[in-house]
Amino acid sequence: MSAVSTNAPKITWPAQLPGHRLTFDADQPLRLDSGAELGPFTIAYQTHGTLNAERSNAILVCHALTGDQYVIGQHPVTGKPGWWQFMVGPGKPIDTDRYFVISSNVLGGCLGTTGPKDVNPATGRPYGTSFPVITIADMVRAQKLLIDHLGIEKLFCVTGGSMGAMQVLQWAASYPERVFAAVPIAGAARHSAQNIAFHEVGRQAIMADPDWCEGDYLVESKIPRRGLAVARMAAHITYLSETALHRKFGRNLQNRQKVTYGFDADFEVESYLRHQGSTFVDRFDANSYLYITRAMDYFDLAVEFGGALPNAFRGSKVRYCLISFTGDWLFPTSESRAIVHALNAVAANVSFVEIKSDKGHDAFLLDEPEFAKTLNGFLNGCAEHRGLTHR
Amino acid sequence: MSAVSTNAPKITWPAQLPGHRLTFDADQPLRLDSGAELGPFTIAYQTHGTLNAERSNAILVCHALTGDQYVIGQHPVTGKPGWWQFMVGPGKPIDTDRYFVISSNVLGGCLGTTGPKDVNPATGRPYGTSFPVITIADMVRAQKLLIDHLGIEKLFCVTGGSMGAMQVLQWAASYPERVFAAVPIAGAARHSAQNIAFHEVGRQAIMADPDWCEGDYLVESKIPRRGLAVARMAAHITYLSETALHRKFGRNLQNRQKVTYGFDADFEVESYLRHQGSTFVDRFDANSYLYITRAMDYFDLAVEFGGALPNAFRGSKVRYCLISFTGDWLFPTSESRAIVHALNAVAANVSFVEIKSDKGHDAFLLDEPEFAKTLNGFLNGCAEHRGLTHR
Repeated sequence: MSAVSTNAPKITWPAQLPGHRLTFDADQPLRLDSGAELGPFTIAYQTHGTLNAERSNAILVCHALTGDQYVIGQHPVTGKPGWWQFMVGPGKPIDTDRYFVISSNVLGGCLGTTGPKDVNPATGRPYGTSFPVITIADMVRAQKLLIDHLGIEKLFCVTGGSMGAMQVLQWAASYPERVFAAVPIAGAARHSAQNIAFHEVGRQAIMADPDWCEGDYLVESKIPRRGLAVARMAAHITYLSETALHRKFGRNLQNRQKVTYGFDADFEVESYLRHQGSTFVDRFDANSYLYITRAMDYFDLAVEFGGALPNAFRGSKVRYCLISFTGDWLFPTSESRAIVHALNAVAANVSFVEIKSDKGHDAFLLDEPEFAKTLNGFLNGCAEHRGLTHR
Repeated sequence: MSAVSTNAPKITWPAQLPGHRLTFDADQPLRLDSGAELGPFTIAYQTHGTLNAERSNAILVCHALTGDQYVIGQHPVTGKPGWWQFMVGPGKPIDTDRYFVISSNVLGGCLGTTGPKDVNPATGRPYGTSFPVITIADMVRAQKLLIDHLGIEKLFCVTGGSMGAMQVLQWAASYPERVFAAVPIAGAARHSAQNIAFHEVGRQAIMADPDWCEGDYLVESKIPRRGLAVARMAAHITYLSETALHRKFGRNLQNRQKVTYGFDADFEVESYLRHQGSTFVDRFDANSYLYITRAMDYFDLAVEFGGALPNAFRGSKVRYCLISFTGDWLFPTSESRAIVHALNAVAANVSFVEIKSDKGHDAFLLDEPEFAKTLNGFLNGCAEHRGLTHR
């Protein structure tokens, strides 16, 4: 009766994920916000386009909770197109004929960058919940090491949606001299009580699954499939708008003329959610889900700056463009507006565009022409100021 | 690490719940929408106040998903006040000095009315998932038998919030000659795709719990505590508004000065949600949760009336008062407005009040003076028309 069987096959992580690796040895550990040190550690990343001679055309794309470094091209695990296919590529707003696009898997992730599913060399066993809790600032610290490694003194732009926007804000606040332009999309300067609540439901669903094994499921050759699927289902609802759900599914029945008076997926929306849950389990690590949601919950940029958000941006020469979507109730426009107010308070260079869309939070992943036009226009303007010529 | 331990004590249902019982024998089964027949079956109910000689002062109060017949007074399981303490009682809008208040546990419930945790006399075992799937109309059918039994030809009023409002609408549509006034609060004429989606997450959380035992947990002396707690946590978020969560908790930490860089409930909102989950398990049956959420999902009043909602109310002499709350995103004002439009289309007698409140869907359970004033005013007006004098 349940959507996800415990007998389903385990995730098969590709032996060799495509893309680049940057590894820091145990003697170069990353000092984390928690005080813990992580080392050795690896950053998995992808690049598209060509870095110009001046090394001035690099755009760092930061991914969201369940995203990864595969922004375009066929995904090595799912076989589907990358998550930002509409925005990145030749002739797209983030034009790979013009810019050098860098995207890395976040710290704590499960697509090549060190995370809880990886083996702790000190014990020879997967970290599980012995992996240190990481923050958005830790993710950005790791990314900065990558940017240093690539010899890029100043990123032309840092951008990303949702948790990606949190990283963008952290980049601009922590390393303003390393960022020319910042585009946080559908984000917030701190995670709201409601969003923490939804994350906590997801974590509890995972931890309630006996196959989670107190985090040691890999050692036990198990996967908390059911718990992770429930977590994904709950989260997925928050990524869509009520309007989008209504338009897409309404009360349509799933391949039947009448309700069955049972607990099967009578409604299309149920079938869709179950599918979202069960396919997610085949591409994502449950402990990574715990760690990354926790990093988002902990995010509150102002705290680092004496409790006042404007301090995070004081004196910054970064050019900001904030983008939100009308139908997004997870990261509503009010969150972006609060950031704009803080930026205005320190006379920062800021644009703000609210895109009309009823597609919910996921709008930033979708083909939204006004959104693409906005990002394209902003990047073109910045490119001119940065002296980037068309190739 | 998980909020709900599987070793926690089982629910102890009081041997004898206070209140009345009306039992129909096996030779008087209830014919359900599914085509199944349920019998014998019992309706557990409470009354407050005195039925007048004309039997014209009865108000039927219909409860929501996790409510019950204990609208006022100490709850026999939780020891807490009844769910509508602010609205029902001497001198309250639903004045027990003036009206005869009837409230019954819904069919499929777990507080005395026959539901999945009860023993099926045909097998000698608890029904579990062999209990027939019931609908809102089935709940109302059972209530009508109770009203017949009490010798009440016409209810002065039927009212209730959320799923209670669904029952109110069904009453008015199915038995218009038996209802003088109808007050559906924070309701809808059909369950939305988003709401079905949230219910499906809750059901999947329950069914994912191995202690659910495919529905036979009572036979196995188990309780799917973790799954039911996760279901409750997810649902509870939808009962509150983002504003209420922010005001109540914000990003406040739970009895600590700093985050712990772990997965304990660092934030007050996490602790609150875990508490909501674990206490719910002590008062509610998991299979009842499956059945009652399913009844709500199936609710679509128009379908019964040729697909056009106005047909449900055509020729009706019922006086309607619809009430919604501005901060309710689960049953938003637009849902009540759709019902008002249908009532207007058949020139029904209808009032509609949207109460300003930022407390979310749960506002109908809370001390909201404007809400109380609205209900009080409407009932007073109706009482005058009905010829009910003050005692």
